[in-house]
Amino acid sequence: MKNSHSGLKVFAPASVANMACGYDILGFALEKPGDEVFVKLSDKPGLRITKITGGKLPYEVEKNTAGFAALKLLEHLGETGRGFEMEIHKKMPFGSGLGSSAASAAAAVMAINEILYRPLEKRELLPFAVLGEQIADGAYHADNVAPSLLGGIIFIRDNETLDVHRLPAIKGLHAAVIHPKIEVLTRDSRAILKEHVTLKQMIKQTGSIGGFVTGCYTGNLDLIQRSLTDVVIEPQRAQLIPGFYKAKEAALKEGALGCSISGAGPSIFALCANNLIAEQAGAALQKVFTDQKIESDLFISPINQEGAILC
Amino acid sequence: MKNSHSGLKVFAPASVANMACGYDILGFALEKPGDEVFVKLSDKPGLRITKITGGKLPYEVEKNTAGFAALKLLEHLGETGRGFEMEIHKKMPFGSGLGSSAASAAAAVMAINEILYRPLEKRELLPFAVLGEQIADGAYHADNVAPSLLGGIIFIRDNETLDVHRLPAIKGLHAAVIHPKIEVLTRDSRAILKEHVTLKQMIKQTGSIGGFVTGCYTGNLDLIQRSLTDVVIEPQRAQLIPGFYKAKEAALKEGALGCSISGAGPSIFALCANNLIAEQAGAALQKVFTDQKIESDLFISPINQEGAILC
Repeated sequence: MKNSHSGLKVFAPASVANMACGYDILGFALEKPGDEVFVKLSDKPGLRITKITGGKLPYEVEKNTAGFAALKLLEHLGETGRGFEMEIHKKMPFGSGLGSSAASAAAAVMAINEILYRPLEKRELLPFAVLGEQIADGAYHADNVAPSLLGGIIFIRDNETLDVHRLPAIKGLHAAVIHPKIEVLTRDSRAILKEHVTLKQMIKQTGSIGGFVTGCYTGNLDLIQRSLTDVVIEPQRAQLIPGFYKAKEAALKEGALGCSISGAGPSIFALCANNLIAEQAGAALQKVFTDQKIESDLFISPINQEGAILC
Repeated sequence: MKNSHSGLKVFAPASVANMACGYDILGFALEKPGDEVFVKLSDKPGLRITKITGGKLPYEVEKNTAGFAALKLLEHLGETGRGFEMEIHKKMPFGSGLGSSAASAAAAVMAINEILYRPLEKRELLPFAVLGEQIADGAYHADNVAPSLLGGIIFIRDNETLDVHRLPAIKGLHAAVIHPKIEVLTRDSRAILKEHVTLKQMIKQTGSIGGFVTGCYTGNLDLIQRSLTDVVIEPQRAQLIPGFYKAKEAALKEGALGCSISGAGPSIFALCANNLIAEQAGAALQKVFTDQKIESDLFISPINQEGAILC
């Protein structure tokens, strides 16, 4: 199917946002799981969603994250007069904190761009994917969409202007991500957050994000480890995930560089220096939920450096 | 006098701390002004301060920032039984927000280390200099002392553990620093700060510090410019400096990358891409105070990359 412009399929990966000290501004992409979007040209003008698998989502283009993102891109390109059919195949759980809606939006804009023979650079697709995710999420932020589309560890200076920066890839870095099958609604996870933080917490948090960025640029894993802390959001949201601190402690004991909540939860990520530690940290994370009789999915993955890809 | 171990003189430069988005965690060193500390060996055991010029400061070693820093270093080295005489020559204004006490402390520990034939690396002197500054300042933080001692733009992940990182030098970078001769007491400047910030402000501030660090590592002056903002401290302290916003606007109009309060004020710094812009921004800053009939000292300087030096 690759490079056929009558129809093509794009995969966009899951992502971990709100990465420890980087609430709203730091995220990274996994290699799997991810969503697939299939697009083909049609004689009938307009964009239609013809099939959705893996989850109940609206077929109305304007209410669907992938559809809306694609539509906004088509409007920008002046291509709304043409006909497109879109299939969305959700291959990861909703409400897991793994950026499912972001992945669908990223895949959708990339698929549209490809089928039109790439009028935009991949990076230029970002605003449209963010608009799509906004449908699901309510907020305009790119810490899921940008890694899902572009790959890597993404730091965002400012979401409003999408001042997005890909941090240097660190060899060997792997993540263990556990998705305990409990429901945490993003709106609850947001509502729980206090509107204020102390000045001291802010100083800590600015120190941590600066330390994390410095660690990435210098390849200093010890510094990354010291910087992967969150004194603001994690303490407030931990209560939504039964056994969170036990899980975190278990992952750190296995040598993870850091461990915190993925997105708005309930998934938890552990960032690790290599695959072996990630496997061990992942097993330790999973055991904590198994012991509580909570089912979970475990994903072990290097940092995905490609983001959305044709497949 | 250089390298004579019976007596030697060390110069430590002024520094700009609380650098915009980096409250308590970001500072840089100027080439001038600065303080000088002269140390010579003495047959009479113990450390004595024998002369202080340029300001009224306590001669009691334990109450003097330079003296206390030197004493703590001597204790660490087990050299308190030896005799030292110290002269302190203050060559910059007190209470200006230019890190005067930090410079004296940095010069003192370097002078002691040199006269003892360098038992420690320069970087290892940092905790003792910070202890010295703490005498004057009350708080244990290194965003003046570290640049004054080590030079460069210094980012501090954590003050408590002195997790201090020198950011890459960016060619051409200059600062204009204006010291309006008005009194702003550090304790007032601290007391004015609210204990809380909003979550939104924290997100902005973490974005800015991460952006600044990224800009330094990538040599991206545009990004540095976008990141040199402070939505938390500057708006609260601006009222202490008459005409602050007018001065800031004037410096930015001349092309400064950013402009904010130096330390606890009343000095204002403007970071600029080159010397010419720094000269122009500096003149514009000074004019705002001259127009208000407020005397001021203007310093134009590249980022000092050496910190404290033997002279």
